[in-house]
Parts: sequence; C-alpha cells; structure tokens
Amino acid sequence: MIKKVNHIAIVVADLEESMRFWVDALGLELAHTEHVESQAVDVAFLPVGDSKIELLKPTDNESGVARYLEKRGPGMHHLCFEVEDIVAALARLKAANVQLINEVPVMGSDGRKFAFIHPKSANGVLVELYELKSV
Amino acid sequence: MIKKVNHIAIVVADLEESMRFWVDALGLELAHTEHVESQAVDVAFLPVGDSKIELLKPTDNESGVARYLEKRGPGMHHLCFEVEDIVAALARLKAANVQLINEVPVMGSDGRKFAFIHPKSANGVLVELYELKSV
Repeated sequence: MIKKVNHIAIVVADLEESMRFWVDALGLELAHTEHVESQAVDVAFLPVGDSKIELLKPTDNESGVARYLEKRGPGMHHLCFEVEDIVAALARLKAANVQLINEVPVMGSDGRKFAFIHPKSANGVLVELYELKSV
Repeated sequence: MIKKVNHIAIVVADLEESMRFWVDALGLELAHTEHVESQAVDVAFLPVGDSKIELLKPTDNESGVARYLEKRGPGMHHLCFEVEDIVAALARLKAANVQLINEVPVMGSDGRKFAFIHPKSANGVLVELYELKSV
C-alpha cells in the first residue's frame, strides 16, 4: 500500500539562508523551487535517494505553515508517503478509526491526489499521502 | 556525499499502541524491534522504500528521547542521512561553521559510525549522519 517516503517537509523562515546548511554545508542538491499559491509557501525541492527534502517558507502570515513557524519555530513539519491508491488507503485508515484532515483526496494542479492524516492519530506526526498521476 | 535518508525517527509513548497506526492502519511492515541500551530506547524498525521509519520509545526518564517526549509530546525526533564518508562530511560541515553535537563519529556496536548535527544549525531539525560498515 505504501510505496515510499515521497518527502519530508521542513518549515524554514528564510529559504536562501536555509540553503547554506542543506545545500552548501550538507551537500544536498537543489532541484528547483516553486511558489505554491494554495498553501501560501515557497518550496525548495532537494532530492535525496528515492525521496526528497522539501523546505517550506510561508509567504503570508495566516497559512498553516506560517502559524506553525510562529508557534513552534523552524523544524520538521510533515512526512509524506506515496501510495498506490489513495482512496483505498483513506478507506482503510477510516475503518481503523484514524482521524483524517481530508476524508476525500484533494486534487493538486499537477494531477496528484493528496490527503492529510491528523497528528492526533499518528503519534503527533502530520502525515500526508500522495497518489501521483499515472503516466 | 549524502546517499539517502536512512531513517526518520519518531518518538512515541507506547510502542505497541503506535503499531495500530503505523502497521495496522497505514500498512507499513514491522521488520523488527530492538532495545538500544546506550540510548535507553526500544526501537521498532519499519522499512519503506529505500528508507525506514524508526519508532523510539524511551525506557527510562532521563534520556534525551525521554526528555523530548516529556517536554514536547510524541512526534518527529530526528532525520538520519546515510553518507559515504562521515569524517569528510563532518569536516565539510565544520568548515561551514555548522554546530556539531558529535565532532568525532561515535562507533555503534554494529560497526556503524554516527554523529549528530545541532538543530540550531539545521533549521530546528536534529540531523543524524550514518556511515554504514562496508561489507
């Protein structure tokens, strides 16, 4: 059901400054950055093995990511697993009484489907599921 | 320099109870559990893709993991990258003025070398480096 860790998302206050650690010092590669308007974040994608580190920088003061940064400071924000079939995965989670933030998958602009599991049901971890668009 | 994400470590209060989410509901596979005396934790290893989720349950009240759980509750604790050459990686990090918790690699009982980077230098993330024993 779970294929792999798609990404680990880390909230940062300043994307350029954070590159000094993740890219310059640690040696990860910056693949690209993009602005995700729906989440009000700039995202830097750093592939590593069969996964990615995603650095998230809030671009307003009201998004979930902005409030996380304000309240808790920078750090790991969520963990995203890639699944074969997100509808089946959500049904299985719901049957196990897992609290879902999105009971129905959200469709991304790129055809990707995603949903979040509530941290209350996942040992304090905000877990995201992705079903990538089949090619 | 960085090969992949070796594991994402998550602190939990109760290992058996946490399996209900990660294994029963989410569908990850439990490979094995072990007690790590030096860190005073029980660890459950859940392989996924080319990485692993490691669930850490403190077995005393004084370890770093126990204090983390007491202070912040369950959640993501650290992120571990596998490197080719940990001595070279630490030298590069030090040259970039990154604050290291272990300036010299620690030798694990299984021949693995590891070192932690201070969260102050890594956007609030406790980052671990592994150099696995060559076989």
